[in-house]
Amino acid sequence: MKNFDINEDPHRRFNPLLNEWVLVSPHRAKRPWQGQNETIATEALPKYDSTCYLCPGNVRANGVSNPKYDSSFVFENDFAAMKQEEIIFEEDIKHTFFKAKPEQGISRVVCFSPRHDLTLPEMDLDGIENIIRTWQKEYTDLGSIKYINHVQIFENKGSVMGCSNPHPHGQIWAQSSLPTQVEKTHHNLKAYFDKNKRTLLQDYLQAELKSGSRIVIENDDFVALVPFWAIWPYETMILSKRAISKITDFTEAEVSSYAKILKQLTIKYDNLFSTSFPYSSGIHQAPTDGLEHPEWHFHMHFYPPLLRSATVKKFMVGYEMLGESQRDITPEKSAEILRQQPDVHYKSKEV
Amino acid sequence: MKNFDINEDPHRRFNPLLNEWVLVSPHRAKRPWQGQNETIATEALPKYDSTCYLCPGNVRANGVSNPKYDSSFVFENDFAAMKQEEIIFEEDIKHTFFKAKPEQGISRVVCFSPRHDLTLPEMDLDGIENIIRTWQKEYTDLGSIKYINHVQIFENKGSVMGCSNPHPHGQIWAQSSLPTQVEKTHHNLKAYFDKNKRTLLQDYLQAELKSGSRIVIENDDFVALVPFWAIWPYETMILSKRAISKITDFTEAEVSSYAKILKQLTIKYDNLFSTSFPYSSGIHQAPTDGLEHPEWHFHMHFYPPLLRSATVKKFMVGYEMLGESQRDITPEKSAEILRQQPDVHYKSKEV
Ligand SMILES: O=P(O)(O)O[C@H]1O[C@H](CO)[C@@H](O)[C@H](O)[C@H]1O
Ligand SMILES: O=P(O)(O)O[C@H]1O[C@H](CO)[C@@H](O)[C@H](O)[C@H]1O
Repeated sequence: MKNFDINEDPHRRFNPLLNEWVLVSPHRAKRPWQGQNETIATEALPKYDSTCYLCPGNVRANGVSNPKYDSSFVFENDFAAMKQEEIIFEEDIKHTFFKAKPEQGISRVVCFSPRHDLTLPEMDLDGIENIIRTWQKEYTDLGSIKYINHVQIFENKGSVMGCSNPHPHGQIWAQSSLPTQVEKTHHNLKAYFDKNKRTLLQDYLQAELKSGSRIVIENDDFVALVPFWAIWPYETMILSKRAISKITDFTEAEVSSYAKILKQLTIKYDNLFSTSFPYSSGIHQAPTDGLEHPEWHFHMHFYPPLLRSATVKKFMVGYEMLGESQRDITPEKSAEILRQQPDVHYKSKEV
Repeated sequence: MKNFDINEDPHRRFNPLLNEWVLVSPHRAKRPWQGQNETIATEALPKYDSTCYLCPGNVRANGVSNPKYDSSFVFENDFAAMKQEEIIFEEDIKHTFFKAKPEQGISRVVCFSPRHDLTLPEMDLDGIENIIRTWQKEYTDLGSIKYINHVQIFENKGSVMGCSNPHPHGQIWAQSSLPTQVEKTHHNLKAYFDKNKRTLLQDYLQAELKSGSRIVIENDDFVALVPFWAIWPYETMILSKRAISKITDFTEAEVSSYAKILKQLTIKYDNLFSTSFPYSSGIHQAPTDGLEHPEWHFHMHFYPPLLRSATVKKFMVGYEMLGESQRDITPEKSAEILRQQPDVHYKSKEV
């Protein structure tokens, strides 16, 4: 029998956004790895690739040509997961087990830059601010469509994250329903706000700033931290300091601070294993159902798969799929490692 | 405007085990794939590998030698995610955001066979029955330890599923708490049983047998089907026909039927893409908290990642991590494809 030491002993942590637990096994980082290694693309990319369907002026699979865009460029996904067509549907309430509902939606692709060879951390702040303004415009435009109640902005970066084209781009899936994860978060944010009249993330951020141990970056308007309940080894969350419910409520200063923290965080990520760091990232913010959402607090999740090096990822498999997410390094340790990464991109030093 | 066609139109389906929705995009299977391909090991394995830490007689990382076992063999995981030590802990109830609790548990590895070169579908029925008896013994032994309330039996198969050794083996993680996914399932099974006095899966199975469209295999005592709410392209579930709450309640006949359906299902899986089909599988059954659990109904999940071929998997990334699981082929179509697979292993035909 010994006293609980959160830095040493296996334990579970609670995630109040999803109302779920995660298993933390600090001691397990020591285990040797003999499993699969990821392959990483190392050849330098050209600024323009004539075979890339996202580069300016090129023709896409459906025969349409991209304009010769010079900042960002948005188009409808040629292989969208949802369709805009309205579907007539009568719910069969007798079906306890075969419950299905048609879903209407729009999928778009957002090219971040005309340059084929850049990624977020390598772009300049103007370019990143321009992406943020594009996200604002899309959130407004898509959100104002009558049947669209949720706009999911996200990026899959790196082939290990299912990204099939290195040209810097993200996606937007807008739809009628709140997706499962968002619905859960919505429920928990609302319960907290109704009870406390403050957003859950406002109070959480205060507690984190007071503790300091999981903070990676803080600037005037945003904080990047490793959540207390993070499941991925180097998972982070960017939070606005003000309780802003959506990206369109940012001030000019906040747009600029957001661009800065995006660049700084992704530079630290790239520097961690001297590689173009793969992740899926995405913004969680207020639904676009036309109602006020004071319970929502703008935040962006980064879910990066790498664990030990540029080629060894964390496998969320057997136990994790059937039981519970499990991590091998504490969030405090990850935050410390990320904090220590230089703010200058490793490639810019190579030049 | 058109009428809803579940085989053609994007829709959401409801999973009553987890109380979650999944997005189904039937039309999306047509999209071309230019992304990452998995590498597959194609060289034939030896029956015995002197460098394998699971083969009989070999020495493991911690210096201990495996016995010269001739059927199955169980040992404590040398790099366990949980520890058996009891931890003294006083809960700090003031912490709304930093909730953590020590977790006590035991991790074991189950070698399925002394043969390094076999997998479940290639083993004979006696060998598979022997694995089932080993699972029964472990469920009993671990479950009878006072602080163990849940025994998770699972297998990660294939390097794409984080498996670092091709020697056929599974794992068991036994612990004090119900893991997140199991807790959710428990809650939903109990609510259904309390209301209907029958297990949810008993009634679900009746509805599935009546429909027939998602059944892959049926034998005297078990059914393998693609759940109506499956998220992975070729996800299946094996269900007992009787409402049995745990593996130790199987009759002799049921042990034999279970071995048969395990072999038949994994042969169909291997035949699908003529490859050793990767998956994570695991058993969900009654907690070992000493109480009766009439609401629990024995079932085994198979979560295989492959989508189009032996090398192209489904990526559960951006939208799926932030929003909701999404699939590109209907469960009915997957069931039809699996049903059509021969019951003789493709390798045995090569001989
Ligand atoms: O078999 P191992 O090496 O213990 O580990 C494997 O299975 C575990 C349980 O699903 C996961 O936590 C690991 O990420 C995975 O690599
Ligand atoms: O970028 P793509 O090709 O549309 O697709 C990628 O992102 C989607 C949304 O996260 C996933 O459903 C796909 O599995 C993934 O390959």
